[in-house]
Amino acid sequence: MSLVVVGTMAFDAIETPFGKEDKIIGGSATYVAYTASNFVKDVKQVSIVGYDFPQEELDQLAARGVNLEGVEVIPDKKSFFWSGKYHMDMNTRDTLITDLNVLADFNPVIPESYQGAEFLMLGNLMPALQKSVIQQMKIRPKLIVLDTMNFWMEVALEDLKEVLTMIDVLMVNDSEARQLTGEFSLVKAANKILTMGPKYLIIKKGEHGALLFHNNKVFFAPALPLEDVFDPTGAGDTFAGGFIGHLAKTRNISFENMKTAIIVGSAMASFCVEKFGATRLKEITKADIDTRLQEFVQLVNFDIALV
Amino acid sequence: MSLVVVGTMAFDAIETPFGKEDKIIGGSATYVAYTASNFVKDVKQVSIVGYDFPQEELDQLAARGVNLEGVEVIPDKKSFFWSGKYHMDMNTRDTLITDLNVLADFNPVIPESYQGAEFLMLGNLMPALQKSVIQQMKIRPKLIVLDTMNFWMEVALEDLKEVLTMIDVLMVNDSEARQLTGEFSLVKAANKILTMGPKYLIIKKGEHGALLFHNNKVFFAPALPLEDVFDPTGAGDTFAGGFIGHLAKTRNISFENMKTAIIVGSAMASFCVEKFGATRLKEITKADIDTRLQEFVQLVNFDIALV
Repeated sequence: MSLVVVGTMAFDAIETPFGKEDKIIGGSATYVAYTASNFVKDVKQVSIVGYDFPQEELDQLAARGVNLEGVEVIPDKKSFFWSGKYHMDMNTRDTLITDLNVLADFNPVIPESYQGAEFLMLGNLMPALQKSVIQQMKIRPKLIVLDTMNFWMEVALEDLKEVLTMIDVLMVNDSEARQLTGEFSLVKAANKILTMGPKYLIIKKGEHGALLFHNNKVFFAPALPLEDVFDPTGAGDTFAGGFIGHLAKTRNISFENMKTAIIVGSAMASFCVEKFGATRLKEITKADIDTRLQEFVQLVNFDIALV
Repeated sequence: MSLVVVGTMAFDAIETPFGKEDKIIGGSATYVAYTASNFVKDVKQVSIVGYDFPQEELDQLAARGVNLEGVEVIPDKKSFFWSGKYHMDMNTRDTLITDLNVLADFNPVIPESYQGAEFLMLGNLMPALQKSVIQQMKIRPKLIVLDTMNFWMEVALEDLKEVLTMIDVLMVNDSEARQLTGEFSLVKAANKILTMGPKYLIIKKGEHGALLFHNNKVFFAPALPLEDVFDPTGAGDTFAGGFIGHLAKTRNISFENMKTAIIVGSAMASFCVEKFGATRLKEITKADIDTRLQEFVQLVNFDIALV
């Protein structure tokens, strides 16, 4: 049940119709670690932070069983900083500031103690770095999951295409799936992406749920209908953390178990958006997660025998 | 298993990114009848057409067991005509022409032979007419389902609010639920609508599926991911026809059976959009419907025991 997680650990400034935070902890690997640590201990984190990253944040992660050996601390530089503002519909946002800081020199190194991990979660990063991580793994992980974004399709498409041939599961959102393939229909886009390397494709649709494609099969997980979405920041990474966390816990990478893993991811994401940043993820207990999973059963299960 | 269906029977002109039809059969009651007749015989149709409505269409409906006694034919007027053009995303459309013709004088009369029906489907119409139909039913049907649209919220809101107090299930789309309540959150909108009369609320979200709300419970049915949506016209009415058709067939109005009914509605709607107008609905067999329902089981069912 060993899991390596690679991605950013950062500060975010976020404005939504419900409020504003000037400097809270964020970053893809942060969200993945807070989420996956509900399911597996010894999440092996790979990231980079500056001198300003709070020690108490690192301590909190360590207390959850997150291994920080692979988290580089740069003593004379600041942590990565992102600032964004969400529109009323919460599905679209404007990036206001991107200060790379330590991220400009990030060259992830996999510690020797991380070798042999069965699961690898590559959070959104420059594709060349994602490739470098895969190449550093002496034994290929049983499952490699990769998240990416439109930005890399614009500035590093060839690198991205290369890394796609090296992974098992790709996660993108609906507009990224369209951008990557030039297909408007998500089914057509999925069919194209499944010829580009990944054997599994997850298309995230925010409040409209997520689709899992594999061969000619498709599975759909809804988002939980919520009274209010306070802050969608990190929801995609939280989804990824629940997905890979469940798979790493169960060590079962069948399509059937991936269905369950996507429901777990959706359940975890539904917590994430309830408060700003990762606040809610730090509060929830195993009982909260179990209750929410039962809500998903109620939300989608129906009795076909009634037909 | 008796079902009364009230709504329009019309001609449509439709333009989508995939093609154009200048004059095909449409209307809410037409779609409901073609769909519900897969599940119940003796669909008791209430509508109005002009001299130009093709006899062969009426014959086809009659051959499917649709009772046309309540369909008024006006010898010196034309049938209702609607023309619309869909945008690339197929979720938005512009109405180009609305020629009311016979609809301007529509005053639905429930034939004596329709009395005692257990199920009543009120397709989108002027709320005052929907109310008149309910008042004409000497024994209140076991379940009254009402579809409406934004237009009536703008021009006949008080009438609409009154008829809402007389029905069991309201069907609207997401933007209509927001408009009716002034709430952006669909959960908040649903909670408000459930205080306005209906005990059940269905919010249709097109390609993003449909939600069923009742008390504090919620159920979600996805739309089937399709390679191409050729023409969404009538998909909402087809959904309604599958929903009410299943309920009328099984005569079970429990929340659990409504879940199954919504899946049936979604399955029927997934056929509707595959070809222009009602073309596909005329072709499909019971075997096609059963196969598609199994696709929905595969699409959403997961094994929570794996958690």
